[in-house]
Amino acid sequence: MAKALLRSREDTGFRGETGMREECGLFGVVSTRNWKTDTNLSHLIHLGLVGLQHRGQESAGIVTTNGGPNDDFITRKGMGLVNQAFSDEDITCLKGNLGIGHVRYSTQGISDAINIQPFVVESLHGLIAVAHNGELVNAKHLKKKLLQHGVGLSSSSDSELIVQLLTHTPDDEEPNGGNWVARIRHMMQETVASYSLLILNHDRVWAVRDSYGNRPLCIGKLLPTDVATGNRPLKPDDCEAWLVASESCTFPAMGAVPVREVLPGEIVEITRNGIYSRCIVPRPEAQTQAFCIFEYIYFARPDTMFEGQMVSSVRRRCGHQLAKEWPVDVDLVSTVPESATPAAMEYACALNIPYLEVLCKNRYVGRTFIQPCARLRKLGVAKKFGPLVDNFNGKRIALIDDSIVRGNTMAAIVTLLKTCGAKEVHVRIASPPLKYPCYMGINIPTSEELIANLVPVEQMAEELGADSVKYLSLEGLEKAVRDGIKDQQETGHCTACLSGQYPVKKLDW
Amino acid sequence: MAKALLRSREDTGFRGETGMREECGLFGVVSTRNWKTDTNLSHLIHLGLVGLQHRGQESAGIVTTNGGPNDDFITRKGMGLVNQAFSDEDITCLKGNLGIGHVRYSTQGISDAINIQPFVVESLHGLIAVAHNGELVNAKHLKKKLLQHGVGLSSSSDSELIVQLLTHTPDDEEPNGGNWVARIRHMMQETVASYSLLILNHDRVWAVRDSYGNRPLCIGKLLPTDVATGNRPLKPDDCEAWLVASESCTFPAMGAVPVREVLPGEIVEITRNGIYSRCIVPRPEAQTQAFCIFEYIYFARPDTMFEGQMVSSVRRRCGHQLAKEWPVDVDLVSTVPESATPAAMEYACALNIPYLEVLCKNRYVGRTFIQPCARLRKLGVAKKFGPLVDNFNGKRIALIDDSIVRGNTMAAIVTLLKTCGAKEVHVRIASPPLKYPCYMGINIPTSEELIANLVPVEQMAEELGADSVKYLSLEGLEKAVRDGIKDQQETGHCTACLSGQYPVKKLDW
Amino acid sequence: MAKALLRSREDTGFRGETGMREECGLFGVVSTRNWKTDTNLSHLIHLGLVGLQHRGQESAGIVTTNGGPNDDFITRKGMGLVNQAFSDEDITCLKGNLGIGHVRYSTQGISDAINIQPFVVESLHGLIAVAHNGELVNAKHLKKKLLQHGVGLSSSSDSELIVQLLTHTPDDEEPNGGNWVARIRHMMQETVASYSLLILNHDRVWAVRDSYGNRPLCIGKLLPTDVATGNRPLKPDDCEAWLVASESCTFPAMGAVPVREVLPGEIVEITRNGIYSRCIVPRPEAQTQAFCIFEYIYFARPDTMFEGQMVSSVRRRCGHQLAKEWPVDVDLVSTVPESATPAAMEYACALNIPYLEVLCKNRYVGRTFIQPCARLRKLGVAKKFGPLVDNFNGKRIALIDDSIVRGNTMAAIVTLLKTCGAKEVHVRIASPPLKYPCYMGINIPTSEELIANLVPVEQMAEELGADSVKYLSLEGLEKAVRDGIKDQQETGHCTACLSGQYPVKKLDW
Amino acid sequence: MAKALLRSREDTGFRGETGMREECGLFGVVSTRNWKTDTNLSHLIHLGLVGLQHRGQESAGIVTTNGGPNDDFITRKGMGLVNQAFSDEDITCLKGNLGIGHVRYSTQGISDAINIQPFVVESLHGLIAVAHNGELVNAKHLKKKLLQHGVGLSSSSDSELIVQLLTHTPDDEEPNGGNWVARIRHMMQETVASYSLLILNHDRVWAVRDSYGNRPLCIGKLLPTDVATGNRPLKPDDCEAWLVASESCTFPAMGAVPVREVLPGEIVEITRNGIYSRCIVPRPEAQTQAFCIFEYIYFARPDTMFEGQMVSSVRRRCGHQLAKEWPVDVDLVSTVPESATPAAMEYACALNIPYLEVLCKNRYVGRTFIQPCARLRKLGVAKKFGPLVDNFNGKRIALIDDSIVRGNTMAAIVTLLKTCGAKEVHVRIASPPLKYPCYMGINIPTSEELIANLVPVEQMAEELGADSVKYLSLEGLEKAVRDGIKDQQETGHCTACLSGQYPVKKLDW
Repeated sequence: MAKALLRSREDTGFRGETGMREECGLFGVVSTRNWKTDTNLSHLIHLGLVGLQHRGQESAGIVTTNGGPNDDFITRKGMGLVNQAFSDEDITCLKGNLGIGHVRYSTQGISDAINIQPFVVESLHGLIAVAHNGELVNAKHLKKKLLQHGVGLSSSSDSELIVQLLTHTPDDEEPNGGNWVARIRHMMQETVASYSLLILNHDRVWAVRDSYGNRPLCIGKLLPTDVATGNRPLKPDDCEAWLVASESCTFPAMGAVPVREVLPGEIVEITRNGIYSRCIVPRPEAQTQAFCIFEYIYFARPDTMFEGQMVSSVRRRCGHQLAKEWPVDVDLVSTVPESATPAAMEYACALNIPYLEVLCKNRYVGRTFIQPCARLRKLGVAKKFGPLVDNFNGKRIALIDDSIVRGNTMAAIVTLLKTCGAKEVHVRIASPPLKYPCYMGINIPTSEELIANLVPVEQMAEELGADSVKYLSLEGLEKAVRDGIKDQQETGHCTACLSGQYPVKKLDW
Repeated sequence: MAKALLRSREDTGFRGETGMREECGLFGVVSTRNWKTDTNLSHLIHLGLVGLQHRGQESAGIVTTNGGPNDDFITRKGMGLVNQAFSDEDITCLKGNLGIGHVRYSTQGISDAINIQPFVVESLHGLIAVAHNGELVNAKHLKKKLLQHGVGLSSSSDSELIVQLLTHTPDDEEPNGGNWVARIRHMMQETVASYSLLILNHDRVWAVRDSYGNRPLCIGKLLPTDVATGNRPLKPDDCEAWLVASESCTFPAMGAVPVREVLPGEIVEITRNGIYSRCIVPRPEAQTQAFCIFEYIYFARPDTMFEGQMVSSVRRRCGHQLAKEWPVDVDLVSTVPESATPAAMEYACALNIPYLEVLCKNRYVGRTFIQPCARLRKLGVAKKFGPLVDNFNGKRIALIDDSIVRGNTMAAIVTLLKTCGAKEVHVRIASPPLKYPCYMGINIPTSEELIANLVPVEQMAEELGADSVKYLSLEGLEKAVRDGIKDQQETGHCTACLSGQYPVKKLDW
Repeated sequence: MAKALLRSREDTGFRGETGMREECGLFGVVSTRNWKTDTNLSHLIHLGLVGLQHRGQESAGIVTTNGGPNDDFITRKGMGLVNQAFSDEDITCLKGNLGIGHVRYSTQGISDAINIQPFVVESLHGLIAVAHNGELVNAKHLKKKLLQHGVGLSSSSDSELIVQLLTHTPDDEEPNGGNWVARIRHMMQETVASYSLLILNHDRVWAVRDSYGNRPLCIGKLLPTDVATGNRPLKPDDCEAWLVASESCTFPAMGAVPVREVLPGEIVEITRNGIYSRCIVPRPEAQTQAFCIFEYIYFARPDTMFEGQMVSSVRRRCGHQLAKEWPVDVDLVSTVPESATPAAMEYACALNIPYLEVLCKNRYVGRTFIQPCARLRKLGVAKKFGPLVDNFNGKRIALIDDSIVRGNTMAAIVTLLKTCGAKEVHVRIASPPLKYPCYMGINIPTSEELIANLVPVEQMAEELGADSVKYLSLEGLEKAVRDGIKDQQETGHCTACLSGQYPVKKLDW
Repeated sequence: MAKALLRSREDTGFRGETGMREECGLFGVVSTRNWKTDTNLSHLIHLGLVGLQHRGQESAGIVTTNGGPNDDFITRKGMGLVNQAFSDEDITCLKGNLGIGHVRYSTQGISDAINIQPFVVESLHGLIAVAHNGELVNAKHLKKKLLQHGVGLSSSSDSELIVQLLTHTPDDEEPNGGNWVARIRHMMQETVASYSLLILNHDRVWAVRDSYGNRPLCIGKLLPTDVATGNRPLKPDDCEAWLVASESCTFPAMGAVPVREVLPGEIVEITRNGIYSRCIVPRPEAQTQAFCIFEYIYFARPDTMFEGQMVSSVRRRCGHQLAKEWPVDVDLVSTVPESATPAAMEYACALNIPYLEVLCKNRYVGRTFIQPCARLRKLGVAKKFGPLVDNFNGKRIALIDDSIVRGNTMAAIVTLLKTCGAKEVHVRIASPPLKYPCYMGINIPTSEELIANLVPVEQMAEELGADSVKYLSLEGLEKAVRDGIKDQQETGHCTACLSGQYPVKKLDW
């Protein structure tokens, strides 16, 4: 680092009306033993964050500690993808028996070094590190309260509010850093929604989910290597470490298995001795859970399990449901790769129409920093996709996608397919029209940018240049989600972006 | 750049037995008019290189010029992906009416700044820039010859040999820089194989392919924007620019269409006025074309066209052929994403067995610079793939892949699927066993590392932990390739890595 | 920055016994008019920080604002020298009518991005930016107090304590952000010493010095360009901007002149309308000023003015005094370049002995990150100095230095001179032995590392290999300092590092 | 480097009329034994280059080898100062028993990675690395000759011409790489002037100087550590390594002593067994040596020895001579730091006037990449110097400088001194007016930019705002230089930039 150019820029945001909206991923590890040479805490966290990279690509951070009473925290943070943010030397330095990590995607362009999580702060009750996924509906109110208490705030993120609320509750009567359960509960009572949190303190990690269960968080355990490689069967108490992650898809890669989800409102204490449910903060009466349904539709990885079912399976059922609601007579069914593929295959299967790929995705396009010339701007999204012309030339296509946001991509794809010889293109969307903003942590453009607010459904085909455009119904989506959940009474989903029904009101004061 | 840390390291290679083997991608543009504000030469080259990124990810370079008699060349080069190698400012500086670009993957760790192409040199006949894809079978001999002529060589790449051969042939009798056709032909007679080349000189680009046609190269033309966006039909002489690329998949992204491939042994001159075939250097008598069959199997993008057919279609036919040769009674067919997917779908279709995804690929794993701890090394490749457990739990799987190199990946995948509940895993490979080294430009490990040389086919299933392992036959592969080619007599493929039959002998002197 | 690798590392310090000791430089500007194209606020701050670079070389930061009621702050920070920390683009972005900057040298290796000043925080009374030079003697106590109030602290620096103390004092009764004088005074009453501070808030900069006047701070005014270039005489109200700086040496470079020093305990409010002394916080009774005498001896630039006299003049008088106290019969007098040169010249002059340079300093040695091999470690400091052999071969030298810290440098120099032919080397130090640690902001090694604590004065010559070693007396130093000050009653200096007499006790609780 | 952004830009130069002019520094080491742990070859070269940093600050390179018949070369190069160009890891990697290094300052803004020296090339006679200081007067002619031989040239530097000339002379009759003396002599006969060269080949370094001796080069030997630290007297055959450097000032820092200069036209072969004079290529008859007199005036470090005398001593004699030619009645004599200081002290001494510093140089100003605003541009050079006002207020100053180039600096200094209270400022220049361009390696602006060509000497005082301006005569300078040289007949200096008398004509064809 000695010669590295390290610059930080903070142009913005202190006077913004609300805190930043962030999509994020969390990953924590608490080892149950002192690891020998073959396992390294920071490698697990690093790999866990790579597995959550789809949840945030702008920065990453890891904090570890040995867990002894006087052990310091070791912190490494960096901009960019996990692979860019940490060097080999960083990972080597991050020693310890427990730790947490965070990947972050700032949705408002404020991707400053100062905002990289986890946040580490010294409090009356010792050092804590906090990693946060979510967005506080009453951020403005909380900020004012903290300022009035005389706290100076140095970042523009909701997460700093949570950190200060946690340290802001002194309990001198309790020596030794005292009652963290009470302190976290107090914070939860003030913050409402939405958040999943990991809090590292001394020799334990606290895993917390808001009482609506809006953001995901699940617990897993790391198997001994011989079990993970299939060389020995699993015994009941085989556990090398406790893991906690935004998504269960991170577990198989490291030879771990899911244990259970953190419950809505639950405070789970994770130590080397086990996982302990310390408290469940209740929702207001008559309110149901509100797990973000957009995690199923688009955001989560297909191999993640939520509520006992695989995300990919929900997406398949959406395709099946879409086929029942909106069949079409075509020569082939295809997908906009990659998230709509399960739905498209099931749609094809349900209608007994051949499934064929019509688009090849260039995985290297991704984020580019070059502003394109006018010509390329007009051609737009086509650069992400190459047409597999021989598969569709002269044919009628049913093209499945998971959602339409602004509509630019879909319009460009339809043009590409048609100019390359498609006879008809019928667009089928495996979720309802996206019409309302999210203020609980998912980055959705403003209402004015959402094509579903700008163009009536019946004119959508014309707008996109397609032969027909149909959406899955909200009931169809909910059925697809609920059909895979065993205990139907305990569930409940936030569909605000589709239905306008918000579980919690945003407080703009 | 003023403050950027610019370091170059050249540890190696001058005493290596042969030049470096390189996988590369080439892209060139010659505009037919002076572009107005809406199209920018360097944006096209940049986008073309992004479309060829799968052919080389270690460095990239672009050279442009205005084409006037005294116009200088503008060069920008960088390490890493195209998006990292060039800044917005670089692309802005790269002005001109014609230019060439190169992406490179050095296969021996020698990825030095000094070796980034295109090479720019001053010769008696003016400035030239050269971009090269391929590997010279007689590199050692050529090097000795050049050294004996008194030329000092400053890089360890075959491409420098080509450059010096081009400048090494003075023809004083011809004023004005004279006869480039003769000069290129002379170089071709000395170099044998393999290469595809772009040579930028003054106001033209020369596109050249070795006489065996081993490496691909094709010509396209850029359509006016209104044609490309479907707002106006194509007229015969619509051409904004001539393009030349390693693969045709680069064309649709910029609103261009393929025109034809450069023929084996052909020298094509591309100017603003058109494309002119200047010469065809013949192969030795009785020898056939030898286009690399591995481009079809694995290397090229599925949406690329070679010899009039889509790569993806060849891969589908390989799956079909594989089903005929090695059917199996299973509950589902699946793929190792992503290149084997077309073959897997067709295999499923031919046997009328459901196709289902069993693995989710984490597209963020890619290249990491962190050395994993022992535990993660043992778990190995699993980190690239998440199991879609619900799709295969308790079922028998036929798992299709395009090829097996060292076998580590496949063994790890089989273990992952089995420990996650697969009842049986039958591996089917859509190409013959890979047994022989390539010395014509494809990076294949040494014979000692190839599992097909280490384990007899009949023991392969046991070695990989699978229930059965079968390969497509060479005849099956060749049929799959030839079935889509119209003029069967004019074709011919190099299958050396599979058959041991090399079109040209390597000269180790 | 898009692609720049931005990493932050925070290994340390949260459990440290005290805050970090820092040497720093401060610079602030408040323009009196809206500048036209010819003057740019950030250029002035940049140049001011370059002029203070000797006070801190590890990081630099600048914050600017327009001064309107809703104007945001613009912040740029970077590691390294001022010229490395800011790009041209940074300076262009830092627009506004007022701003402050900071250079920092962390003395304990904790040079993290998170600690780069100025700190920007949102408080109940609006945004503030704070730049701090000094070290709080009661940091531990203040930290505990803040933690007990429930504030979480995220850096390990004293400066964060000051920032939180400033925001920690809400005064709801006063609307509009109210009484900053009261708030700053309250902070000053809690912090004791030592600090000089710049606080940027809304449309003004507050310049503050602790009541002992331990760290320097002075005010200047920017002249119109035609006055500064000598093209027009100065008029009384000529003032383009008010400046405030750690040292007056920054002023001539930008065409400015010093106005006065900020007084011990004074709060000065600087607006576009002028400079206003708002308050003087008194010292405890019977206590005198305690301006750091080491600023005169070594730390400050020779062209800086303190207490009405030039630092260089004090150093000359030290040389004169040293000649009176410790004359010696030699052939020539010389210096260890560069800070001892004025003293050496005056010593030579007082004794009427020729002054000649014997060492040439290599100004490029500076900070190197290469760990030397054993041989070079043994030769040590010699690499900084080349011997001017012809000047001293066969001669007796009196070699003047300003101070001896660990003694390694001086021992190596004496060896170098002797092996190159010096007949005798008599060392004369223009200040008393350095024996006691500083906890008010100057980086002095621990007592155990100071050679004056390890070797009795009478054995020092033998230890260093010199023929004699003598120090200036404390009385001699004080006389040299006081002789140039007009109002002798108002002055007073901290000589703790030399005398062990500390103006304020350090509170270790 | 894996993640470092490595970019190369080559905008320029291929069509330039001549090769680039470069100021450079060379350093080579050949060890006489296999070093144990305590000495590391690359540390010596690194330190040597730091000692030559004043000769070039834009890039640096080091090449080392073990010297065995099949040993490869290890190369590391980087932009910027030596301390920036190499990392600790680089220095560790640069193992071996012999090696050469180079620092470079490109005088025409072409500071591309591709031009960083030493150049490493493979030739018929093995690998060579070449480091070059100088500029070829017949570059254009040589380039044409090489191009006609069919060599492609890939850089715009004279040094590549030398490298190709060296490899361009095959001598097949001599096996084993044969006759390097003949080959170097042949190159010398073609290149005329000016150059000093280090050539690394196999197990030896060739040190070469052009026959006019225009650029410096000297040989030293590394003493055992105990001798270097004064713990043991020198024995005749004490030699740890042979060194070769542009300036002898590099030797004391590493515990080495000068042995002798390489003679004009000499080829010295340096092996572990000793230094051997292999050949002296004669000058044209009746021509004298032409060592660059500007090395004495300004360019070299004061502690360097040329022709048996210290550079600093020559500068002192210039000051003495100036006092005789142009005395003046003033209150004090001073210097423009730092290179004029010896002359100024001697001037003061000769006239018995007090010497006092009037300017403090800010050593951190140096190279900045920030374009100043209009105001600061007008104030110009003042930012480099702070006035020591108390030393000159109300007084008459004789201000000595070594030379005046464009005059901007001196004009700004005179203004600064006058506006700060100087009563009179008399400028005295310790060399004759600089009027003619250099085409042998020193970067001097074009004639049109040199103030001595624009303003008659008699109007110079008015132009600069001074009370008088006087220059040392050419005879005075030559006397000052010659007075310290023992063998007066063997010497001779190039004074072309002052006299217009060039030793060699530049060939512009």
